[in-house]
Amino acid sequence: MTEVQHMKWWGWGVEGVGFHWEDKPAFAPFVAEAVGLDLHTAPVVSMPDFDKLTVAPSLADPAFVGALASIVGEDNVTTDKMERVVHCYGKSIRDLIRIRTNRIERTPDVVVYPADEAEVQKVVDAAVAADAVIIPFGAGSNIASSLEPRSDESRVVLSLDMGRMRELISIDEQSGLAVIQAGALGPDLEEQLNARGWTIGHFPDSFTHSSLGGWIATRSSGMQSDKYGDIADIVRGLRVVRPSGPGRSGILVIRPIPSSSTGPSVREMIVGSEGRLGIITEATVQVHRTPARRDVYGYFFPNWEAGTAAMQEIAESDAHPSITRISDSRETGFSLATSSERHGFDKFAAETVLPTLMKSKRWNLDDICLSFIGFEGEEKYAKRQKKLVDKIVKKHGGMGVGKGPGVLYDQKKFDTPYLRDFLLDRGAAGDVSESAMPWSKVNQLHDAVGAAADKAFDEIGIKGWLMSHLSHSYHSGACLYFTFSFVFGDDPIGEYNVVKSAIQQAFIDNGGSLSHHHGVGLEHAPWLEQDISPEGVAVMRGLFEAVDPGENFNPRKIVMDIKEPAKAG
Amino acid sequence: MTEVQHMKWWGWGVEGVGFHWEDKPAFAPFVAEAVGLDLHTAPVVSMPDFDKLTVAPSLADPAFVGALASIVGEDNVTTDKMERVVHCYGKSIRDLIRIRTNRIERTPDVVVYPADEAEVQKVVDAAVAADAVIIPFGAGSNIASSLEPRSDESRVVLSLDMGRMRELISIDEQSGLAVIQAGALGPDLEEQLNARGWTIGHFPDSFTHSSLGGWIATRSSGMQSDKYGDIADIVRGLRVVRPSGPGRSGILVIRPIPSSSTGPSVREMIVGSEGRLGIITEATVQVHRTPARRDVYGYFFPNWEAGTAAMQEIAESDAHPSITRISDSRETGFSLATSSERHGFDKFAAETVLPTLMKSKRWNLDDICLSFIGFEGEEKYAKRQKKLVDKIVKKHGGMGVGKGPGVLYDQKKFDTPYLRDFLLDRGAAGDVSESAMPWSKVNQLHDAVGAAADKAFDEIGIKGWLMSHLSHSYHSGACLYFTFSFVFGDDPIGEYNVVKSAIQQAFIDNGGSLSHHHGVGLEHAPWLEQDISPEGVAVMRGLFEAVDPGENFNPRKIVMDIKEPAKAG
Repeated sequence: MTEVQHMKWWGWGVEGVGFHWEDKPAFAPFVAEAVGLDLHTAPVVSMPDFDKLTVAPSLADPAFVGALASIVGEDNVTTDKMERVVHCYGKSIRDLIRIRTNRIERTPDVVVYPADEAEVQKVVDAAVAADAVIIPFGAGSNIASSLEPRSDESRVVLSLDMGRMRELISIDEQSGLAVIQAGALGPDLEEQLNARGWTIGHFPDSFTHSSLGGWIATRSSGMQSDKYGDIADIVRGLRVVRPSGPGRSGILVIRPIPSSSTGPSVREMIVGSEGRLGIITEATVQVHRTPARRDVYGYFFPNWEAGTAAMQEIAESDAHPSITRISDSRETGFSLATSSERHGFDKFAAETVLPTLMKSKRWNLDDICLSFIGFEGEEKYAKRQKKLVDKIVKKHGGMGVGKGPGVLYDQKKFDTPYLRDFLLDRGAAGDVSESAMPWSKVNQLHDAVGAAADKAFDEIGIKGWLMSHLSHSYHSGACLYFTFSFVFGDDPIGEYNVVKSAIQQAFIDNGGSLSHHHGVGLEHAPWLEQDISPEGVAVMRGLFEAVDPGENFNPRKIVMDIKEPAKAG
Repeated sequence: MTEVQHMKWWGWGVEGVGFHWEDKPAFAPFVAEAVGLDLHTAPVVSMPDFDKLTVAPSLADPAFVGALASIVGEDNVTTDKMERVVHCYGKSIRDLIRIRTNRIERTPDVVVYPADEAEVQKVVDAAVAADAVIIPFGAGSNIASSLEPRSDESRVVLSLDMGRMRELISIDEQSGLAVIQAGALGPDLEEQLNARGWTIGHFPDSFTHSSLGGWIATRSSGMQSDKYGDIADIVRGLRVVRPSGPGRSGILVIRPIPSSSTGPSVREMIVGSEGRLGIITEATVQVHRTPARRDVYGYFFPNWEAGTAAMQEIAESDAHPSITRISDSRETGFSLATSSERHGFDKFAAETVLPTLMKSKRWNLDDICLSFIGFEGEEKYAKRQKKLVDKIVKKHGGMGVGKGPGVLYDQKKFDTPYLRDFLLDRGAAGDVSESAMPWSKVNQLHDAVGAAADKAFDEIGIKGWLMSHLSHSYHSGACLYFTFSFVFGDDPIGEYNVVKSAIQQAFIDNGGSLSHHHGVGLEHAPWLEQDISPEGVAVMRGLFEAVDPGENFNPRKIVMDIKEPAKAG
């Protein structure tokens, strides 16, 4: 069978890796305080039993599967139960709960692994000819329900896994542009680039388990976006497979142009399209020489307002850091609680010197906020930028604590998603939601989301926890990233929906977007009209209907209510 | 009648302003050498006679005009001949020649000046109900034939002039965002912003005679885009009027979000839409505090290759100049030839010291290239940036010549378009064409366009001139801006078409876009499929057809061949 590796069918990441708390002395007390869960006594559920999963038989008939096999080879097409389960969901908390509770609503009927663009074209044409549904699959880390078939889909559903198309094809070294296949995962492409002295500079939390094509299809953003831009900025050229026809190539080609005046941007239609406009097979992306210096420094601020004011002033200043990030007091508490046990001078510095210093400044230790600022570039330049930033931090009453916390942040940054499985194992749910908004709305939205979440926790009668950080600074605003958690009751998904909906509505009501970099899928689609206005959705719907009249390409994602009621048969 | 001022009906800019050569001693010899035109003896044609213009009667019947008057008031709707002529073309050389030679193919039938968004909505609804065509009009400086009605249009054509909607509505000072009406011209909005300490940082050559709505509708870019971004980056929020209906507001609203993950970008569909998706009435744009320092420095390079290599290294470096611009040797010659007569030390420095210095460096004076680099920001920062740039310039064999030429450039930057009328008065055509491309293609495309233009000039048997500059630097590429001129023969437009087509085809064939910031209109539409691929155009066509099924909004612009043959009656 195919050589493509997948994440655990029931959780995040690879087998054998998980979150551990035993070496983090402050973690158990923190969790007890935050959501009332006693890690020492909480029963731990074991991994679900795959054999007990109820999965409907594949609707793909042997002739169709055979036709696909004749395109990609027998080894690269399958109706195997495990493969169909792996491809039916992403990794949102809703997805994980459904998998763990044997609620497989609809799997794809057949999974196909094409080797190249020509095979993708043939698979697409065969699928459209058979009136099948095609859902592209990158690495499966989506958390907006962009990957699941409609539960009522009566047509054959084909999951098009891009995992065999992961090569760095070429680098235009003179232009800082690299051509990369869409199925390349973060580590794939970054290792291939690094080996030649380049970096893409795109590091979302999902980096290890997400693909270039997925980043583009969901409008991803990485933690160093302040310097490198969002994926919408990074991707310049695209190749997208759409149905071909007599005398008509199905390949949509956007050439790598730095900026152009060619009408409504088709490039910016493909970006964020979640499979609805075709299959992204290849992209030309901006790459940068790996910087001489890359350092992340830690800072503390006495409170959230001082910290966000500093972040904004840094964004507006002549400094150009690669990361500007600040946690609110709750997330700061969480970060401190997930530190490994310290010893010797480290312990003394972190647990005695620092708190004493803060108290001497009359800081309230419950209000302190931890910030990370990243600097990249030539040695001299990075130093100068830091000097500018240090001055602004000081002006807002903050203080630097050196590179130690930054190194820790850098090491841990891709591990956070494992925490969700750890919590689920112990009866608690945790998930994330993010929004972008103008600077003038940052504090208001932060507080409003807190109030909305509290109200939602009250409504479901559960002790909940919400924390957040600001990251991804722009000239006119930033992203707020919220993490929420609660010990669930009888109806985990229902309870999750109450909390998630309250948070999303607070985003919209306070001038934020429904998402900053996680996409729309089914999960955020209910807020799209409120975000971009009914007329904005009408324009988008018009595009989808015109370009995919047969609703073969990941239908009902982003805009849900096309041609209701759902097509039958 | 309306208080809205327009450019000359027959040319660029305001009455009484024009290009003068008498105070520029090097200009006449330069023109003689370049295109074989003797300014001392060339007959000067006078301004065309308005009364002799052949203009078909308006198709708008009194009932329709009356209905419009009941919306905007009698004073703000007109079928007056002058008004219809003013609104029938933009200011491309084709437009100017047609106006001068009494070739008014099709004017709008009625011109309407709404006062606010509510009036725009009513006008749009009335026009759609009457199956009229609506063409939005900003300030009329378009050079891509985006404003003219189809010559075979048999329906009533309404020109919707936004000239009364030019207010700065509000500034969100905390976010650096300003809400501005779409009809505001460059000077309108910049003066209102400057008065409060802000700037939009968007300065296209057309600045004095172009509007915010026009910039957005054509994907404009200003000369300081290296720092402030293209208009696509600057505009965050939008209000666009589309047809309303029962229970359906026609207002499409994109809220000002710094970056979001909401599917295909509707904002990026409106940007560049040239009126095809609706009428842009208002935008929220990024604004910046007026910088403490703003200086433009001049540099000379021994040749084009050295200069473009320096521009790229500057763009890649840790310096962040606001302008990076370099003229090729021909445009450098042109710039030097348009300098006013120098006296005293200036004359000695420019005409004796500088050439001597260049010769001592073994530079060939026919190859030298003049560059302008702009620096903005805090005093210390601007100085540091300049130091970084100076180092790069030196490495590539260039030399700085101080602020003098930059001041001159700054003063003259908006006057260049007047030169076209000056040349037309004397029987010569001059126009521009620009493209963006990866850095690796810059020199190749520059040379290929030169060869293509030479071939075209040969083909029409005319001595022609082509010059260019690189401006608008990005991480992965830049814009090349070409100006061409020739003394025309019997068929000015036919001759222009040969040269223009050769240049456009060379753009595409050498990895460039059909335009960087002038839009598509009718003028560049023939190259759209080659630029964004037939399938890319199919997607765009699908969008237009879905969103404007009646073809009421500036039909056939950008994508020409919708539902051919043209609709009749």
